[in-house]
Amino acid sequence: MALDILLNHRSIRKYKDKKIDGDLLQRIFDAGCRASTTGNMQVYSIINTSDIKIKQKLAPAHFNQPMALHAPNVVTFCADFNRFNKWCRLNNAEPGYDNFLSFITAAIDALLVAQNVCVAAEAEGLGICYIGTTTYNADKIIEVLNLPKGVVPITTVTIGWPDEMPKQTERLPLEAIVHEDIYSDYSEADIKRLYKEKETLEVNTQFVKENAKETLAQVFTDVRYKKADNEHFSEGLLKVLKDQGFM
Amino acid sequence: MALDILLNHRSIRKYKDKKIDGDLLQRIFDAGCRASTTGNMQVYSIINTSDIKIKQKLAPAHFNQPMALHAPNVVTFCADFNRFNKWCRLNNAEPGYDNFLSFITAAIDALLVAQNVCVAAEAEGLGICYIGTTTYNADKIIEVLNLPKGVVPITTVTIGWPDEMPKQTERLPLEAIVHEDIYSDYSEADIKRLYKEKETLEVNTQFVKENAKETLAQVFTDVRYKKADNEHFSEGLLKVLKDQGFM
Repeated sequence: MALDILLNHRSIRKYKDKKIDGDLLQRIFDAGCRASTTGNMQVYSIINTSDIKIKQKLAPAHFNQPMALHAPNVVTFCADFNRFNKWCRLNNAEPGYDNFLSFITAAIDALLVAQNVCVAAEAEGLGICYIGTTTYNADKIIEVLNLPKGVVPITTVTIGWPDEMPKQTERLPLEAIVHEDIYSDYSEADIKRLYKEKETLEVNTQFVKENAKETLAQVFTDVRYKKADNEHFSEGLLKVLKDQGFM
Repeated sequence: MALDILLNHRSIRKYKDKKIDGDLLQRIFDAGCRASTTGNMQVYSIINTSDIKIKQKLAPAHFNQPMALHAPNVVTFCADFNRFNKWCRLNNAEPGYDNFLSFITAAIDALLVAQNVCVAAEAEGLGICYIGTTTYNADKIIEVLNLPKGVVPITTVTIGWPDEMPKQTERLPLEAIVHEDIYSDYSEADIKRLYKEKETLEVNTQFVKENAKETLAQVFTDVRYKKADNEHFSEGLLKVLKDQGFM
């Protein structure tokens, strides 16, 4: 049942040394591309990298996370107006997609396809892991993957046959996420109640200790997702949008 | 089989006059929230609007598309750092997420959940349709849904029991979308070949006639997604990012 596939998701970072059959990948990409797309423009591209030489070149952009190298397939999902713009120009139509809204439109398209590809892969018994570094080092990825103007990488997924079955990570209770009718902002008491289980999980208290921090939140703000890094990568990403013709 | 659910997707714009059971919706949102999320931060919120008065206020932001009013549930997916920031501040941690990268991170989170929710809904026999206007009129949606600083609506999905079974829309051949190892840019001949089937489909030649245009591409550039509109909405969206604290 499809809901079970979604409910059983865990990120798989260790893969068997076994290729993914080409036909299977095609079926997965095919199912992925049935995702909704703005005006049926399909303003996205999928770069399916399995060549070890290209993976080696890509790996530094992903901070050399082992899975970026050892997964049989490293799949980069891109916002792509290049193809659509070329089609317009060949058809006596002047494209007006060199702006921020068009980038967001294409990024949305690419991300819906990415998630569909992940669901399809998991339905076929494969394991997947998103790599969040794609937007940090988009400039380097553009260089390695030879992405022309109009194309911006937005996320990357490693895919392969699972060689681990990690525990699922926790999620906040649904009442923390879902608002009825309009947004109801959180009081201090709400926040404390909604994050309590997360904070007290052993895996998380352990994480705080390992990082020598006082609170779990500090692990995020001071170690994992720091303001200075976020600002540095924001600047880089905005420059990429400009260079690729979206600003 | 899950692949079939993906392969059978079509956007459903007409719904039966029948509520969605609350337990069913919870199951769907629960499955949706198993989607991958950056560092397990879950920087998104889901606004589930079923109150007709709120739907009526929202509808103009969606250009009064009938489904935005008649779907039993209009679900707005938001990039949300508000909750996370509050949690940080309550835990002696100074959040550094008032920047563009953090907005993109949260938008990616929200979109993966949105697509998972859509797959889950379709697996349960419901019909869904994405509304692309969310990023056009984010300011109006923020007002109606009472979204605080740190929250930006990124996409909207209408959900309900299907009252139509439209034909599937066409997709480009997979070779138009998937690149092996690195991006291979398109020659004129490639573009002509890859778009030929799309251009010659009766539904599309009809569309060109109805719009009194020469080519299908012109329907996009001159009627559906015009440069002036894109630039106008780009400005609006960038202002929203600034106002909501992401620039």
